[in-house]
Amino acid sequence: MESLTAGQFALVYNAFSFGIATFGAATLFFWFGRSQVSHHYKTAMTITGLVTFIAFYHYWRIFSSWGETYEVANGVVTATGIEFNRAYRYVDWLLTVPLLLIELILVMRLSQAETVSRSLKLGGAAALMILLGYPGEVSAGIDSTRLLFGALSMIPFLYIVYSLYSSLGEAIARQHESVRSLIRLARNLTVVAWFFYPVVYFLPFVIRMNGGTAIAVIEVGYTIADITAKAVFGLVIFAIAVRKSEVEGLKA
Amino acid sequence: MESLTAGQFALVYNAFSFGIATFGAATLFFWFGRSQVSHHYKTAMTITGLVTFIAFYHYWRIFSSWGETYEVANGVVTATGIEFNRAYRYVDWLLTVPLLLIELILVMRLSQAETVSRSLKLGGAAALMILLGYPGEVSAGIDSTRLLFGALSMIPFLYIVYSLYSSLGEAIARQHESVRSLIRLARNLTVVAWFFYPVVYFLPFVIRMNGGTAIAVIEVGYTIADITAKAVFGLVIFAIAVRKSEVEGLKA
Repeated sequence: MESLTAGQFALVYNAFSFGIATFGAATLFFWFGRSQVSHHYKTAMTITGLVTFIAFYHYWRIFSSWGETYEVANGVVTATGIEFNRAYRYVDWLLTVPLLLIELILVMRLSQAETVSRSLKLGGAAALMILLGYPGEVSAGIDSTRLLFGALSMIPFLYIVYSLYSSLGEAIARQHESVRSLIRLARNLTVVAWFFYPVVYFLPFVIRMNGGTAIAVIEVGYTIADITAKAVFGLVIFAIAVRKSEVEGLKA
Repeated sequence: MESLTAGQFALVYNAFSFGIATFGAATLFFWFGRSQVSHHYKTAMTITGLVTFIAFYHYWRIFSSWGETYEVANGVVTATGIEFNRAYRYVDWLLTVPLLLIELILVMRLSQAETVSRSLKLGGAAALMILLGYPGEVSAGIDSTRLLFGALSMIPFLYIVYSLYSSLGEAIARQHESVRSLIRLARNLTVVAWFFYPVVYFLPFVIRMNGGTAIAVIEVGYTIADITAKAVFGLVIFAIAVRKSEVEGLKA
């Protein structure tokens, strides 16, 4: 493995610590927010906080694993032989990615039947997408395995993106006008942030990935994508829940 | 002991970490859910969260024990000589399995006398089942002990399954129609998930169990069975409690 510079090591280290702080703070913000929304949106806020809580836990683990992978002394970084556990990200996504889609569905307050059916379809597709990505990610160096599972994983990914714009797009159009553009923003944010993940997944086919620069870009990039898809997305969900609680309260 | 591949070690490691995150998140979800159900169902939600909280604690211990059992350096897994503590699972089940049955009984909101009597019978049988399984599990290599205690443990197991379909089945038939199928789902989920445990228990009589593949299948399988029996089951209990709170609220 090509070695990292001390600056690259520290950048990733600090990005992970930033992730821990951001997700911990976001979790508390969302759970305090439960008391500010009507009872229809409490489950959405609980889950929004759970997503960042689960990410908080995994960034803690990732941060520890990163610290065990390298030793830094007198400005020189050497690998310890312990492997950096990239798979924590997959464990995280397996739980959080379905929940993120369920957050969006819950805050729309569709009928019970529609909520259950959309949650199962989109949540199930999301879990399948992550499960299919895992064997490719851990097959270090075996290009054909990575390519095969990456391609399989893209099928549920594209199904989700398609659903978010086709049938869910129609459901969004039926939402109250005061929140319609916020819900579209939440949906677009998800899709834009999510496109970072397949790009990184397929990057090894384009450039050598064991260089220090590549590692730093990927780990910092993942951290930014995770924060966007979970914490920033959660803020939009909170704003929607607050706005809808107000509008519906006035009607009642 | 036949050694594990790095991929098998990592799969089990990640499955245990997944367990920690899932049970931690589920616990908070259930305890937040207490505020969303009527006071009749708050104890059921407290216990639903306690079950996943106890599992969260034990998966933390199991994860640590697994990490101490093997050393991974440069892609090679070697046993450290420290034994993996399988018995944590029994300690967990001794507490959680009776509580799972009590959850189901509480959410049915039977008469006080029936609640107490069913909880004592089913909870007692569940505790007995686990206590009888333990000597067999720790008698590593002594087949006759494993077989004897396994067979004894099956008696309360079959009693529980029988009760869930006979006398509890009749009690389910008296539940409000809006929740009847959900309660049946909870009961069936329990029975289906629970059948995984005796299968694994008796597996050493069929195949050699110290191979890496067998270990990985069993540990990942236990994790999936535990998540189904505790977290997914708990979600169904929550759904029942919410539905019954709504229905009974309208009547009152």
